[in-house]
Amino acid sequence: MSSIFPNFMLRPVDRALAPALQAKIDGKTKPLGALGRLESLALQLGLIQQSLAPQIRQPHILVCAGDHGAAKAGISAYPQDVTWQMVENFLAGGAAINVLARQAGVQLVVADAGVAHDFGPRDGLLDAKVGAGGTANYLEEAAMSAAQCAQALANGAAVVQQLAAAGCNTLGFGEMGIGNTASASLLTHCLTGLPLADVVGRGTGLDDAGLERKRALLAHALKTWPERTDAPLAVLARFGGFEIAMLSGAMLAAAEAGMVLLIDGFIVTSALLVAARIEPQILDYCVFSHRSSEAGHRLQLDWLKASPLLDLDLRLGEGTGAALALPLLRAACAFMGEMASFESAGVSQK
Amino acid sequence: MSSIFPNFMLRPVDRALAPALQAKIDGKTKPLGALGRLESLALQLGLIQQSLAPQIRQPHILVCAGDHGAAKAGISAYPQDVTWQMVENFLAGGAAINVLARQAGVQLVVADAGVAHDFGPRDGLLDAKVGAGGTANYLEEAAMSAAQCAQALANGAAVVQQLAAAGCNTLGFGEMGIGNTASASLLTHCLTGLPLADVVGRGTGLDDAGLERKRALLAHALKTWPERTDAPLAVLARFGGFEIAMLSGAMLAAAEAGMVLLIDGFIVTSALLVAARIEPQILDYCVFSHRSSEAGHRLQLDWLKASPLLDLDLRLGEGTGAALALPLLRAACAFMGEMASFESAGVSQK
Repeated sequence: MSSIFPNFMLRPVDRALAPALQAKIDGKTKPLGALGRLESLALQLGLIQQSLAPQIRQPHILVCAGDHGAAKAGISAYPQDVTWQMVENFLAGGAAINVLARQAGVQLVVADAGVAHDFGPRDGLLDAKVGAGGTANYLEEAAMSAAQCAQALANGAAVVQQLAAAGCNTLGFGEMGIGNTASASLLTHCLTGLPLADVVGRGTGLDDAGLERKRALLAHALKTWPERTDAPLAVLARFGGFEIAMLSGAMLAAAEAGMVLLIDGFIVTSALLVAARIEPQILDYCVFSHRSSEAGHRLQLDWLKASPLLDLDLRLGEGTGAALALPLLRAACAFMGEMASFESAGVSQK
Repeated sequence: MSSIFPNFMLRPVDRALAPALQAKIDGKTKPLGALGRLESLALQLGLIQQSLAPQIRQPHILVCAGDHGAAKAGISAYPQDVTWQMVENFLAGGAAINVLARQAGVQLVVADAGVAHDFGPRDGLLDAKVGAGGTANYLEEAAMSAAQCAQALANGAAVVQQLAAAGCNTLGFGEMGIGNTASASLLTHCLTGLPLADVVGRGTGLDDAGLERKRALLAHALKTWPERTDAPLAVLARFGGFEIAMLSGAMLAAAEAGMVLLIDGFIVTSALLVAARIEPQILDYCVFSHRSSEAGHRLQLDWLKASPLLDLDLRLGEGTGAALALPLLRAACAFMGEMASFESAGVSQK
């Protein structure tokens, strides 16, 4: 990795505690394995936290917003202004992620990673802007310079280090950026080798003609990159968004800090693909909250051999899937911490 | 229906409000349909409650426990005493459903529908006992008399009428009873025509030999009923458990009261099959919380054309799936009530 990029030191999760965790799970007053995915989740949380009594402490969702130079080429059903308008909606508390985060008892951090709009100093908005006008248009040139890419990664890491210092041990990830499913499709194709056409979807709701146009534009974008490589940071700089790069940096820092990472949908998973190519051990720290109905997400999850907790046909982004999955993480911790054992409850075994 | 059985008057859910609900959903600041199952859930809750702002008020889970005469024949991996021991665990707050209900902010009602154990008067235990020794052994005779069956239905209805009067508008259902997956298999086969072998599963954890033995015993049980019919109350009396009959009555009363019914796993769904044969309109009021890994549950759900919210390989019963799904119902209500519209937030549309 070039020296301008931040370095991350991830420890692989130590599995030595697994037998003790499994014995505790199996001793609870229920048939063996009867809590299904909640049991494997409790085991994973226990391993990440190296504790027989894992807990969700001060959970947050980091929502990064950014604009895409390619958005004006017609890769989205919505105008680019919707990015800043939705950031205003986040700040006013009226977006889906606001509502679902409140409902789940999780704090939001909204970051301007590079929105093409001047918000001025605003309560509740983290200024992490890289490039005041959004990324460059990857149909013509690299979306960002290496220095910008490094800055966005560092910005993501910095906010997570602050959250970790304040006691947060569980972090969900969300995003907003008109055009960012297109960016995520390119990243996914370049980093996994999955066919481009298979990982291009309707995003916010393209019709059939719009989808064909998006596929053609993205195939063209690949051709404009003669020095093509699958090196993750090069791919990220070529096709990424500032919000995606910020998320990749945030994820790496969160895993470095030993947090539980709650992965949302297609775009967030594309940021994870970047991070996982830099530090594969990050996957030990990831809980996959849901399977989006955006076309490429299922393929990303299969490629990662990941089993999401929820499958609710969501395709909204913003971290909404992460917010909806959080109660399941709390439930996994609660059964580990509070459920009686056969012995303590005096219940007969088989 | 014989006059000894309670009568239920269910209204079909009036769909006249559906267009207004859908317009409200579509006006929220998100791409059309992007909240997936949460949107169809919000629509259903709005229709049940006949409100553009559905709410979950004083949610409860009713856990009915009962013993089965056939349990001693070797249809379960656990001894029959586990039924009363688990009721004690419920009363002490240490079972999975206690933990998950607390976590979800839902009150439990634990009912002794006919456990073969004398609890005496106990705080927190609803005495709805029908038959002090559990049901009779359906391998030899009817599990219960028509009068007992009617009593159990009426007991379920009575507790729900009290909950409704106190303001509860959402009710989950759970059960405990060693041997009750066997009973549920027989009910499911008789009421749906699905092949018996396909709807017999491992319950609390039978091995292959145990599963074969269970299948053979249940096939034999069918042969001991020469006057066989698919009339729901006759099937319920022949093979049911008191806890299942109490649940059927509770479900019918809950739908009659206009509540949202939160259906749990295989055994609870068998109680619903009985109720739905008596009053098919009950299905309008049902939210299917999860798909259990107990073999017959997927078949029951397919037969009912039901799409469960969660698929977490649970097979514990007690209402645990209902408790885990409740946050999704709250989330559906929250987005309807709290999310901004494109108009109110000043966000551009397509």
